[in-house]
Amino acid sequence: MNTPAIPGYTLGTSNVARSPLSDEEFALLKQTVLLGEDDVRYLRLAGEVLDDQIEAVLDVWYGFVGSHPHLVYYFSGADGKPNMDYLGGVRRRFGQWIRDTCAANYDRAWLDYQYEIGLRHTSAKKGKTDGIASAAQSINLRYLIAFIVPITATIKPFLAKKGHSAAEVEAMHTAWFKSITLQITLWSEPYVAPSTF
Amino acid sequence: MNTPAIPGYTLGTSNVARSPLSDEEFALLKQTVLLGEDDVRYLRLAGEVLDDQIEAVLDVWYGFVGSHPHLVYYFSGADGKPNMDYLGGVRRRFGQWIRDTCAANYDRAWLDYQYEIGLRHTSAKKGKTDGIASAAQSINLRYLIAFIVPITATIKPFLAKKGHSAAEVEAMHTAWFKSITLQITLWSEPYVAPSTF
Ligand code: HEM
Ligand code: HEM
Repeated sequence: MNTPAIPGYTLGTSNVARSPLSDEEFALLKQTVLLGEDDVRYLRLAGEVLDDQIEAVLDVWYGFVGSHPHLVYYFSGADGKPNMDYLGGVRRRFGQWIRDTCAANYDRAWLDYQYEIGLRHTSAKKGKTDGIASAAQSINLRYLIAFIVPITATIKPFLAKKGHSAAEVEAMHTAWFKSITLQITLWSEPYVAPSTF
Repeated sequence: MNTPAIPGYTLGTSNVARSPLSDEEFALLKQTVLLGEDDVRYLRLAGEVLDDQIEAVLDVWYGFVGSHPHLVYYFSGADGKPNMDYLGGVRRRFGQWIRDTCAANYDRAWLDYQYEIGLRHTSAKKGKTDGIASAAQSINLRYLIAFIVPITATIKPFLAKKGHSAAEVEAMHTAWFKSITLQITLWSEPYVAPSTF
């Protein structure tokens, strides 16, 4: 694969935090979101369907964030105004994340990177990857969880754009929903005391 | 309406904790999960559709929890074994909650009760309502968030059972998904430091 280097994208490297979750706990979590082999197969299909639509998907998501002051605030620089370098840097990793979501094999490297992404949404690491001193020290947990809806709802029209049957689109969408919920669950870990996660 | 009194169901009473969320923050959260008037309308329709299916829905959910030791554990008594009084007491409130989810008007009483339900999933209040000393002190946050999937996925066949068009079923299901995500978001509040929620 010929992926151009993406600044700050460190999946599979030693620069990534280690997830405290055991293999067994992770397996139970996958069971709980009902993620099965069919879903993995439909995520692969979604990967093919989305491959040449990534920029269009990001346009929708960035449009949603950009049109809501309470959301774009989190991409502010030290002056509290939207920082274009910050928005642009994250955007490239966000595009890669769509591909990774569809290609995920849920190994340790993937799991560790979920923990890393969680940390990047909290004061522990927010802004560090892009070298931005943001007025917003961390993403409030309530928006992280709430975002499961827009990130799930807005992908469906893109999944339907390549002529697949209604049943196939539905299956891709369900698999996407499970994966997003699993990921947000994992990203919430650094927000809470270890015993309550 | 002739709702029989349900032990421990305290919505709208002075026995309920107060949500720390301001009206404005709550409005922004509803925006973020894309909850609009159409969704409220479709939740009302879902309420009619589910009205005589509540016990069947609960059978599916309790079946799911009961067949997974890592989940039924949370309903254990002091001896670590599933406590039937606990399971039964919660079940009655759970049935009412389905109705409340469909009938919600998102006022202060509703918002406060969401905070209360969140507390009941944490060590602050778990077991207190039913007078159970459970071996499980709190529901781990990871399962609370992960449960968005089973609680959303399993409702769909029930929504489809009363002869509504595919588009109507889809609209009811989307509204349900938004409401569940909104509620789990609100329930996560007592898990974290106020500044990070
Ligand atoms: C379903 C929920 C969300 C998803 C899937 C998501 C996805 C992502 C991804 C893939 C990244 C880049 C990760 C990397 O560095 O490789 C990222 C970073 C970021 N996201 Fe999110 N995000 C979500 C919720 C939110 C919300 C609600 C906000 C607030 C508006 C937000 C703001 C940010 C910011 C500011 C960064 C940069 C963090 C840093 O400084 O490294 N995200 N997000
Ligand atoms: C989408 C996620 C969930 C929903 C919608 C949900 C719904 C509810 C409802 C409606 C109640 C009764 C609230 C009341 O007292 O009026 C309740 C209580 C309870 N739930 Fe959940 N729940 C969820 C996740 C979980 C998970 C993952 C577990 C763990 C297996 C769990 C275990 C319990 C227990 C043990 C109680 C009793 C709490 C107490 O002692 O008062 N719940 N839940």
